Amino acid sequence: MPGIDKLPIEETLEDSPQTRSLLGVFEEDATAISNYMNQLYQAMHRIYDAQNELSAATHLTSKLLKEYEKQRFPLGGDDEVMSSTLQQFSKVIDELSSCHAVLSTQLADAMMFPITQFKERDLKEILTLKEVFQIASNDHDAAIYRYSRLSKKRENDKVKYEVTEDVYTSRKKQHQTMMHYFCALNTLQYKKKIALLEPLLGYMQAQISFFKMGSENLNEQLEEFLTNIGTNFMYVYNRHIIVIIHKFIIFTII
Amino acid sequence: MPGIDKLPIEETLEDSPQTRSLLGVFEEDATAISNYMNQLYQAMHRIYDAQNELSAATHLTSKLLKEYEKQRFPLGGDDEVMSSTLQQFSKVIDELSSCHAVLSTQLADAMMFPITQFKERDLKEILTLKEVFQIASNDHDAAIYRYSRLSKKRENDKVKYEVTEDVYTSRKKQHQTMMHYFCALNTLQYKKKIALLEPLLGYMQAQISFFKMGSENLNEQLEEFLTNIGTNFMYVYNRHIIVIIHKFIIFTII
Repeated sequence: MPGIDKLPIEETLEDSPQTRSLLGVFEEDATAISNYMNQLYQAMHRIYDAQNELSAATHLTSKLLKEYEKQRFPLGGDDEVMSSTLQQFSKVIDELSSCHAVLSTQLADAMMFPITQFKERDLKEILTLKEVFQIASNDHDAAIYRYSRLSKKRENDKVKYEVTEDVYTSRKKQHQTMMHYFCALNTLQYKKKIALLEPLLGYMQAQISFFKMGSENLNEQLEEFLTNIGTNFMYVYNRHIIVIIHKFIIFTII
Repeated sequence: MPGIDKLPIEETLEDSPQTRSLLGVFEEDATAISNYMNQLYQAMHRIYDAQNELSAATHLTSKLLKEYEKQRFPLGGDDEVMSSTLQQFSKVIDELSSCHAVLSTQLADAMMFPITQFKERDLKEILTLKEVFQIASNDHDAAIYRYSRLSKKRENDKVKYEVTEDVYTSRKKQHQTMMHYFCALNTLQYKKKIALLEPLLGYMQAQISFFKMGSENLNEQLEEFLTNIGTNFMYVYNRHIIVIIHKFIIFTII
């Protein structure tokens, strides 16, 4: 229903079938928003959980490498080079895990917080007000029913006064809750865009700062260091393996 | 035991108590390596799993945003701007999820593959050879025992020949399996460094290329786009909310 962007609160007193029909459209829209936002919430929660797990696992790896020198290897004669190399790795991976931890925090504040607020506060409010409005409507219907039966009988003035009073108060209550409910549904129409975009903006901004941090940490210097280690160790590895295989062949032939 | 970097294969024929004691040290070292590498394997597997989950969750989020325009919102009059904005978000997040998927693949190839190979092939080989060597040693001990009992009795030549032959073959078998076992333990000493460094190098190189890819995708242009969206929507949000709150106050007072 394009063009209509709010429920007319001024029509709540009259409460015409047209108003009720319009309310139905807004309720349907609220349900559709709620379903879509819940799906997005689930997906974002998966990202957030995975990011936390990645952060924790990266930290654990760094910790394990740091603890290498405390391990008791009975054959640890030439471990000094290895220890210092692993300390360097541990340091770099720890820096990376800090970047991940910062990303986790930013995702919590700028993505999870707004979408959770919208889900737990705004969407729940609509459901609560719908219920409250339903109860008030039922009470009002019941009062009207009692009033209609009253007109057929000859009751005393006290009962007549009570029933009329009851119609008045329940009508007032229904009108008030309907205004609240309309207002919440109208607010939702404006909030829905922000509810969608705010966590997305938070996500993107967190990612941008993560890549900036990461790039600064993993600079060219580090790349050079890695290339050197790679080449050196591959050389050591190949030379020794050839010697071992050679010895093995000689001894098994004899 | 610094300075000793390999078990002397040439001593396996003599099989002296000194050689056995040295074997004990190498076995203890192999157990320590195995324990440490298993811990590192667990930590790296956690990183790998979390990275896969992050990749999948990011892809799902992008898919959800892409599907926004297919949602049936009864009040979707002004959705064109929103749809195109969410399509842009979807595209950027999809690119990010591609970067994550590339990172996952690189971690699988360059980190998980070498450490899994070392765990499943090299470390398991040591355990298998230890068992085979134990069985061969037991068989040899049994043959020696039968031979020692033989000398006390007066058996016929055929039995004597068989028992002597048995001692010879079991001795040969034990010697061969011991050589294999020593060789595997020596190889482990050289491989352990590479087994540690190769997955770490793989991890670091995957991270470096991930940050390069990510920085290229999330360039300044995108940052500007985000800042604009942020400001525009916050403005829309605040103006409308003030109007709504104002209306609500007026109606509840009446």
